[in-house]
Amino acid sequence: MLWLNLILGRRGSPLFKAVISDAKLFRNIISAVSTLVEEANLDLDPEGLEVRAMDPSHVAMVDLDLPRDAFQEYECPQSVTIRLGLDGLIKLLKRAKANEKVMITYNMETKKIELTVRNEVKKEFIISTLEAVEEKTPTPKITFKSRVKMTSASLREIIDDAQAIGDSIIFETTPEKLIVLVEGELNSAKFELDKNSPAVVEFTAEEPSKASFNLTYLADMVRAGASSSEILNLEFSTNMPLKLEFPLPQSGSLSYYLAPRIEAE
Amino acid sequence: MLWLNLILGRRGSPLFKAVISDAKLFRNIISAVSTLVEEANLDLDPEGLEVRAMDPSHVAMVDLDLPRDAFQEYECPQSVTIRLGLDGLIKLLKRAKANEKVMITYNMETKKIELTVRNEVKKEFIISTLEAVEEKTPTPKITFKSRVKMTSASLREIIDDAQAIGDSIIFETTPEKLIVLVEGELNSAKFELDKNSPAVVEFTAEEPSKASFNLTYLADMVRAGASSSEILNLEFSTNMPLKLEFPLPQSGSLSYYLAPRIEAE
Amino acid sequence: MLWLNLILGRRGSPLFKAVISDAKLFRNIISAVSTLVEEANLDLDPEGLEVRAMDPSHVAMVDLDLPRDAFQEYECPQSVTIRLGLDGLIKLLKRAKANEKVMITYNMETKKIELTVRNEVKKEFIISTLEAVEEKTPTPKITFKSRVKMTSASLREIIDDAQAIGDSIIFETTPEKLIVLVEGELNSAKFELDKNSPAVVEFTAEEPSKASFNLTYLADMVRAGASSSEILNLEFSTNMPLKLEFPLPQSGSLSYYLAPRIEAE
Repeated sequence: MLWLNLILGRRGSPLFKAVISDAKLFRNIISAVSTLVEEANLDLDPEGLEVRAMDPSHVAMVDLDLPRDAFQEYECPQSVTIRLGLDGLIKLLKRAKANEKVMITYNMETKKIELTVRNEVKKEFIISTLEAVEEKTPTPKITFKSRVKMTSASLREIIDDAQAIGDSIIFETTPEKLIVLVEGELNSAKFELDKNSPAVVEFTAEEPSKASFNLTYLADMVRAGASSSEILNLEFSTNMPLKLEFPLPQSGSLSYYLAPRIEAE
Repeated sequence: MLWLNLILGRRGSPLFKAVISDAKLFRNIISAVSTLVEEANLDLDPEGLEVRAMDPSHVAMVDLDLPRDAFQEYECPQSVTIRLGLDGLIKLLKRAKANEKVMITYNMETKKIELTVRNEVKKEFIISTLEAVEEKTPTPKITFKSRVKMTSASLREIIDDAQAIGDSIIFETTPEKLIVLVEGELNSAKFELDKNSPAVVEFTAEEPSKASFNLTYLADMVRAGASSSEILNLEFSTNMPLKLEFPLPQSGSLSYYLAPRIEAE
Repeated sequence: MLWLNLILGRRGSPLFKAVISDAKLFRNIISAVSTLVEEANLDLDPEGLEVRAMDPSHVAMVDLDLPRDAFQEYECPQSVTIRLGLDGLIKLLKRAKANEKVMITYNMETKKIELTVRNEVKKEFIISTLEAVEEKTPTPKITFKSRVKMTSASLREIIDDAQAIGDSIIFETTPEKLIVLVEGELNSAKFELDKNSPAVVEFTAEEPSKASFNLTYLADMVRAGASSSEILNLEFSTNMPLKLEFPLPQSGSLSYYLAPRIEAE
């Protein structure tokens, strides 16, 4: 690998090069990160790409893991961290059509990212990176008592319904079902998802769990994740943070963590 | 019926229970009432549901008549009037998919309405009712000289065209046709609907009639009604209120009354 | 023709009468003029309709040429100039359905334009014209060194991409290709259209040319023209105005001229 590294260095060639086979999926994944932060560190190494970021209010966290086989091609001889404004990247990825192939390279000397798309027109987009900011976001270590593997569409429907009523939500498990509660000024709603519902893939409630969450954060997460993955894992315990994990179609995963709302007593 | 009433009372069961087989149609009908008023009295009795309301400026009136056979199931052992904010109900009905079955119940003790939808998730929405307000809106007794039964789409097209030009409209009949006139600052338009046009189902002009109406009110009525019924009855006389009646698909009807604009002389 | 003219005059009949077979295409063409000006002179004569107008800042010009055979029927025995607010006309043309036939007449005595549409309803829209304003907009005489005949869709795609980045654009030709450059605060892009690309119909670069243009104007022109024509001719020379010509489907053409941006040195 050293040899390749030297070659790349000598020629002023890009340090990092990857080919994305589905521009729309990649855009949805980056958008999923941008629901929490405007800028982020992209950690690239020979094994793949990782983004870990905490939202400014420290209520929520995102952990994106894209191993090298999530890309059609992937070359990254040495570790590098690139800091980037996500909206600029998303705006340009929007310009690629669905299923269009996009080549991404990073040039260490110019500190610029280049996106290349070839159809009837050859297009090169150059994106400036930002000054690196040291940012270590550790993954929370939590043991979850309740786990529901279910269709993203069903949770999204519940969340959309709930937003018509209030701005916080309670998740609750019994041994038999997931219950979701929302209360507004005038109206309220209760959703029951039985463990035998066709929308449920796996259901585990080691002990009954109950916790309340900010609905705006949760809705952003569920919508962003549902646009990349048809299945999700919802994990929570009583009055603890929840984890929402979306396995990505080709390889890798997108995970969110959200702190519970603790009601003043 | 007394026996059922007693049973219902004893168990704290709902007083009123109905099943709607097409949530979207029901939402369109309630929305048609909400074009005139934000809150309304729903008068429920063993024969069906009626809503009669006058808009705050007393220019327009709506009369919704939904007999029991407009519902897939209907139980209402005794008369009751429920006052409700319509926007909250519409917002929740929007959450049901088209053709989805919705059960509506009213619980006399809690004074709450409950909407229940069952698909992969069981959903219960609870809506608070408002303090009852005595409100008697008598149906106008008018003899109309001109009557046109026509497709809702054609009147809607005329109204949409007219709104591109001005904000009041004149309806006029000759023995042969309906004429609609609109005049704006720079532009004007004239629409002629011959009694033999394929858009006309029945045409009666006992005497030539002519009256002017506020176009904003009329447009709201025609759009709201056209989303529930493909046919309408337009009835008017010279300088008298018009009646716009939409027969509803399953059973019942939605009628609007609109006072004429009398030009200052 | 004199005889007809006299007849028309005597009867107070319209001086000008034309039938448009595709209301949507005609609306798109008029909208293409309205991207530059709110009011315009329509010059009508026995040979056809011409509109030539310069935008208020004198940076751009439009020249619409609709010969008589662009219309299904066309009668205009003598020359006349009609000044018109374009938005009012577009608003009414929007009311006609695609492919609906529209008859346009101009009555010299009332100085009004009348649009007539006949379907199940007979519709007549009357539009007031404006006071004539003397306005002679000469066609620029420029010899262009570079000419690219290409699909409207491809230039539109490049322009849309470029607008995600900056607000001015550089067109450049080499003997082999058209290069388009755009630079924003953080990002930049380069587009290369090879003369052998399937998007290119004809390519001539008599000498390498390079000029910069305002992207907002250009985007309005390309979008407006692309909605009427699948092919365009892009012509420019170094630091000279460009010409963008859209041949119209039936007959006639829509041409824009745009002055170059000259960077302060």
